[in-house]
Amino acid sequence: MNKIEHIGIAVKNLENSNELFSKLFGEPHYKIEEVKSEGVNTSFFKVGDNKIELLEATNEDSPIAKFINKKGEGIHHIAFDVTDIEAEIKRLKNEGFKVLNETPKKGADNKLVAFLHPKSSNGVLIELCQEIKG
Amino acid sequence: MNKIEHIGIAVKNLENSNELFSKLFGEPHYKIEEVKSEGVNTSFFKVGDNKIELLEATNEDSPIAKFINKKGEGIHHIAFDVTDIEAEIKRLKNEGFKVLNETPKKGADNKLVAFLHPKSSNGVLIELCQEIKG
Repeated sequence: MNKIEHIGIAVKNLENSNELFSKLFGEPHYKIEEVKSEGVNTSFFKVGDNKIELLEATNEDSPIAKFINKKGEGIHHIAFDVTDIEAEIKRLKNEGFKVLNETPKKGADNKLVAFLHPKSSNGVLIELCQEIKG
Repeated sequence: MNKIEHIGIAVKNLENSNELFSKLFGEPHYKIEEVKSEGVNTSFFKVGDNKIELLEATNEDSPIAKFINKKGEGIHHIAFDVTDIEAEIKRLKNEGFKVLNETPKKGADNKLVAFLHPKSSNGVLIELCQEIKG
């Protein structure tokens, strides 16, 4: 794993949270993107070589709506940048981690992504992500 | 803010979690440190230019013991590296954030640290940290 690519934070209202995190970082978000397959609107902030992704649900069945109903707003996942996502999925499966997406799927921000179940990683939802080239 | 310095993860048993995260990253932790003032044992992993800090409570009054009792194991805080922690505390207070330590205190890993209350930052416990030089 190369670095923390981003930290995902579940928020109720993206507009309000964009304002809040702009104050925190002293800079506005640089991108907004809807990911229809996940039922989320996202916004991205840069912090050095890392990113913060804010996630707002667009419908009640969205994983973000369910997360907020259960736990409230807060940190949702950590995403690690990897060079070869298929090799990492195989390696982690062999190490006993529960991989939720054995075939990586298209995520936000031009990435192939796969998640590890929090039950196999100390309660932490982990995303692997590999940038799609070309 | 310069980068994500580390992500803090609350764990029940540091030895077991060190083994688990070694498998995740393909490398062992590089340091263990007790922070008596916080009632925690910590271990650190490197991921590129970022770190993961595992936190185990050493007594029942530790903030980590209380966190785990309430929410279970999982992500506890995000720490951002700052160049001038006193200036950042002042700036964020003026922006409306609730600063828990108006005077920075000594944290793990040779850092001056201060926390922002999660209620003022979308449910996210945020640590500011500045490396102690010399």
